[in-house]
Amino acid sequence: MKNVLYLDDLSVGQRFVTGSHTLDEGQIKAFAAQFDPQPFHLDDEAAKATLFKGLIASGWHTAAITMRLLVEGGVPLAGGLIGLGGSLRWPRPARPGDVLTVHGEITEVTPSKPNRGTIAIKAETRNQRGEVIQSFTATLLVPRRATQTNNKQ
Amino acid sequence: MKNVLYLDDLSVGQRFVTGSHTLDEGQIKAFAAQFDPQPFHLDDEAAKATLFKGLIASGWHTAAITMRLLVEGGVPLAGGLIGLGGSLRWPRPARPGDVLTVHGEITEVTPSKPNRGTIAIKAETRNQRGEVIQSFTATLLVPRRATQTNNKQ
Repeated sequence: MKNVLYLDDLSVGQRFVTGSHTLDEGQIKAFAAQFDPQPFHLDDEAAKATLFKGLIASGWHTAAITMRLLVEGGVPLAGGLIGLGGSLRWPRPARPGDVLTVHGEITEVTPSKPNRGTIAIKAETRNQRGEVIQSFTATLLVPRRATQTNNKQ
Repeated sequence: MKNVLYLDDLSVGQRFVTGSHTLDEGQIKAFAAQFDPQPFHLDDEAAKATLFKGLIASGWHTAAITMRLLVEGGVPLAGGLIGLGGSLRWPRPARPGDVLTVHGEITEVTPSKPNRGTIAIKAETRNQRGEVIQSFTATLLVPRRATQTNNKQ
């Protein structure tokens, strides 16, 4: 069984790095066809004539890949990764061949109810050159350890 | 050809409503399997034992569907919908059978360079009962009409 973390186990300043995901043209176009059908995500030639000078991934595709990386190799929170919302920035686009890795840091830990609280994390999705493709500051719901137990483990 | 809009055509307070998208269990599980593999998005039985008491869509799935609705029936911006970032909230989850529609409003129009500027929009994704599933306040890059032309059209 995975060693899951409760609110009580977390503190400001804790950092983590996920595994990596390599983007390719096929993934970019498949995601775009389903969710963001715009020329700069779908068609290499048309993309060259845009601001981006070539094919780029949808920001929502980057966000979805970021979530996958966080679920598989971020912080193993008890109860899962339950996001209430957050703030997203896409300072530069992801392109075919980019290798994405998420660098995270816990920036706030806030107990709110006896059985749970929230944390804020800053999750930066970087490419193979270390450039930030997406910055996501999120609030997550995290359970506390049950207080009626003796915490024997 | 679509009648596209430039920054010069937009003003604060303009509203729009997109078409609708009906979510089903298959879509929810397929998205989750690819991007957000957590029990409450993947498995009806396991989901019943969670905080959510049943299967819910990934917030990123809601975000991606919202983008699709905006691209197909939101504001037809010249140059496409180019988001720089924004703020996301998921006040309640989307569930199988939910019919999602995006209600948008332009909240800021800011010329920045001679050839472009930004707008802020608030895009609320609502279900068939009018409940807000996602609220997204975004900044988009929008071209201005070319000033060297006489704007004959």
